[in-house]
Amino acid sequence: MLRNDELDRWDRECFFHPSTHLAQHARGDSPNRILRTASGSHIEDRDGKRLLDAFAGLYCVNVGYGRQEIAEAIAEQARELAYYHAYVGHGTEVSIKLARMVIDRAPAGMSKVYFGLGGSDANETNIKLVWYYNNVLGRPEKKKIISRWRGYHGSGLVTGSLTGLGLFHQKFDLPFERIIHTDAPYWYRRPDPAMDEAAYVAHLAGELEALIEREGADTIAAFIGEPVLGTGGLVPPPAGYWEAIQAVLERHDILLIADEVVTGFGRLGTMFGSDHYGIRPDLITIAKGLTSAYAPLSGSIVGEKMWKVLEQGTDEFGVIGHGWTYSAHPIGAAAGVANLELIDKLDLISNVREIGPYLTRGLSEALAEHPHVGEVRGVGLLSAVELVEDRETRAGFDPSRKIGPAVAGRMASLGVVARAMPQGDIIGYAPPFCLTREEADTVISVTAEAIRAELG
Amino acid sequence: MLRNDELDRWDRECFFHPSTHLAQHARGDSPNRILRTASGSHIEDRDGKRLLDAFAGLYCVNVGYGRQEIAEAIAEQARELAYYHAYVGHGTEVSIKLARMVIDRAPAGMSKVYFGLGGSDANETNIKLVWYYNNVLGRPEKKKIISRWRGYHGSGLVTGSLTGLGLFHQKFDLPFERIIHTDAPYWYRRPDPAMDEAAYVAHLAGELEALIEREGADTIAAFIGEPVLGTGGLVPPPAGYWEAIQAVLERHDILLIADEVVTGFGRLGTMFGSDHYGIRPDLITIAKGLTSAYAPLSGSIVGEKMWKVLEQGTDEFGVIGHGWTYSAHPIGAAAGVANLELIDKLDLISNVREIGPYLTRGLSEALAEHPHVGEVRGVGLLSAVELVEDRETRAGFDPSRKIGPAVAGRMASLGVVARAMPQGDIIGYAPPFCLTREEADTVISVTAEAIRAELG
Repeated sequence: MLRNDELDRWDRECFFHPSTHLAQHARGDSPNRILRTASGSHIEDRDGKRLLDAFAGLYCVNVGYGRQEIAEAIAEQARELAYYHAYVGHGTEVSIKLARMVIDRAPAGMSKVYFGLGGSDANETNIKLVWYYNNVLGRPEKKKIISRWRGYHGSGLVTGSLTGLGLFHQKFDLPFERIIHTDAPYWYRRPDPAMDEAAYVAHLAGELEALIEREGADTIAAFIGEPVLGTGGLVPPPAGYWEAIQAVLERHDILLIADEVVTGFGRLGTMFGSDHYGIRPDLITIAKGLTSAYAPLSGSIVGEKMWKVLEQGTDEFGVIGHGWTYSAHPIGAAAGVANLELIDKLDLISNVREIGPYLTRGLSEALAEHPHVGEVRGVGLLSAVELVEDRETRAGFDPSRKIGPAVAGRMASLGVVARAMPQGDIIGYAPPFCLTREEADTVISVTAEAIRAELG
Repeated sequence: MLRNDELDRWDRECFFHPSTHLAQHARGDSPNRILRTASGSHIEDRDGKRLLDAFAGLYCVNVGYGRQEIAEAIAEQARELAYYHAYVGHGTEVSIKLARMVIDRAPAGMSKVYFGLGGSDANETNIKLVWYYNNVLGRPEKKKIISRWRGYHGSGLVTGSLTGLGLFHQKFDLPFERIIHTDAPYWYRRPDPAMDEAAYVAHLAGELEALIEREGADTIAAFIGEPVLGTGGLVPPPAGYWEAIQAVLERHDILLIADEVVTGFGRLGTMFGSDHYGIRPDLITIAKGLTSAYAPLSGSIVGEKMWKVLEQGTDEFGVIGHGWTYSAHPIGAAAGVANLELIDKLDLISNVREIGPYLTRGLSEALAEHPHVGEVRGVGLLSAVELVEDRETRAGFDPSRKIGPAVAGRMASLGVVARAMPQGDIIGYAPPFCLTREEADTVISVTAEAIRAELG
């Protein structure tokens, strides 16, 4: 094992970390943390500090850490056949088996799965497929994509354009022109607090309709949305939202992409978020929960309607010019098969249905009356505490005060990892599905203690 | 183990293969091949057919198949800590160690490495960094990227735009506006056969200079190129090409991105292609050879000049809004460390220097006089045989005849995998570095037999 001081030096000299203040890190002005091992809901760093990870990595280690069944499946695949490509009809037993398992678990009407590496590249695939689809159908002008402010769909150039968060646009010249945004269904931030849910949903559907009319429906190819807003703040939609949105989209022949990177494979207590909300997508983006992050793997699940047109396209134009060298990588596929089997075997989605509401309710009971807690919300095993300066006006703190990161930092010093979401002072929770009641109690009490320590 | 007929059915019902004729595959009109195991330079499918893989997967399994040292490193990492993210200064021993190893092996002047998953996303990162760089420097107009026709840099939307091959643009509305193309250094296809190398290089540099002047140097941010054209035809540049191109770029303050996805970590007989050709890049793209494909991992190596500006950017604007959940994934990093150690331990790059020229020379001796062989070329362990209808005029076959795929298909039936490159009837070779002379002899004789069988 290498010495910690040596690793620290190499880290600062050589390692370009994602979503980091690069200069502070290189200068040694900000802390780093080098992880050594992890088990269940706990991670442990090389200094021996053990933390309860209430965000499951980046809401991805859904089955929990240290699952030897998955490790062994990866090991066996690595020994036998670590890699072969999937181009031109090639495959491996494990990647084909996983394709079958994904389609078996997907909502009705899904046909095929294209495997990628991460959520960003899966959404890149989706946009390519949507454009190809309309080109095959002879509608070359129908190409714009509607995303939502506060949506998160990746941090590539096109996928970062889909993402509706300033941090991911800033200094990268995003969003691109063909990507346009509509309002997010953010109940707590609804324009008029007097609105009820039905009125707010009607307002959102009306905004979408107006946008489509301004742009022209014949210029708009698809709408992309997460069943529950993720990185934008962990915000469940108001009742009836998806039904109302889908009615608008169907009226204008606009495809629907459900980005289920966060919600896929159980996080809401159903296999897919689409099941939970009655969403009927044409494309589904999957990643994180597909392998619980034990190996990189993502996917684009293509519905029957689109698949028929893709077939027509290759009959007319030949081989489709899309592929990653590591599409359907056998190591990722092995992790995926073992992961989905484990979810079934341990009935982890039932645990989500039990422990998720328990956690949200506990946070609410502990914090709802705090003068700087604007809202406690959640669905399944996704919860959030939104902090505000003023409960009456719902006015947030000055972002330069970095209240969210301060609370999350305080929580980490108390032994619990939660995530300060990037826009607004929102503390986010997305623990592994195996979280126990005792662990949930710790998350709740540490949150309350940290908020009191920072905000009184 | 599942039955083959069952896997065949699932494959056609559920699996969306990259770069495939989707309709033929789904209907069962085209063959599939399900791989079972592999070792050294050989792969074996589930029907028991064993093939010598002279393209190393997709020129990525550089150390050869079945390396138990790498499998064991992956297994150990999976058991201990399969995943933690690298955001906000987090890391793992193995990812930090790999960052150090990459920088130690990189050409002079390289500072940091950002780890991604595959070559496409690494080039996506590169373009983001180039735009960020010029925004920080207050040059918001300096954003266009010059790529080369026949260059290959990925198949995303922006990276597919960089790629200069029609297949990857067709029906996807590519290339995007900010990506422009200049001529590839394709000696065999030089405009005037009477040109010598120096004249051809001067011509190419002049074309580049003219493009820059037409567009305005203050609108052009970067030039991207593979040291040796890869998917575009496996074409080594003429002598003096890179020196001449770099002189033009330096005159106009244009960054240079060396896409070393194929050439990095030994394929040309040097650690990087940049070493081989005296290229002084600002950014280097790495993927395939970094892990020999045992797990997905790519990288963007950032030079000192750019890194300083990225630091300035985060000092001015805070955290950089770029990251993949699976950046620096520990399983990929473990594969990378074990792979680079194995390359050193077995001195595989020396074998490239010996066996590469042996293979190219052998192909040339066997085929150079064949009436339909236009050129046999190669550098390091990359070789190509370009087939033409007419040697005198260098006119190719009608693409609809699919001569390249027919020859490659015939070779496969004779037990050797080579790749029919996607544009032109070019048979490509990029075997594992451990290829023996005996295996090279087989590749040569099977190629000659297949060409004679198809073309007389």
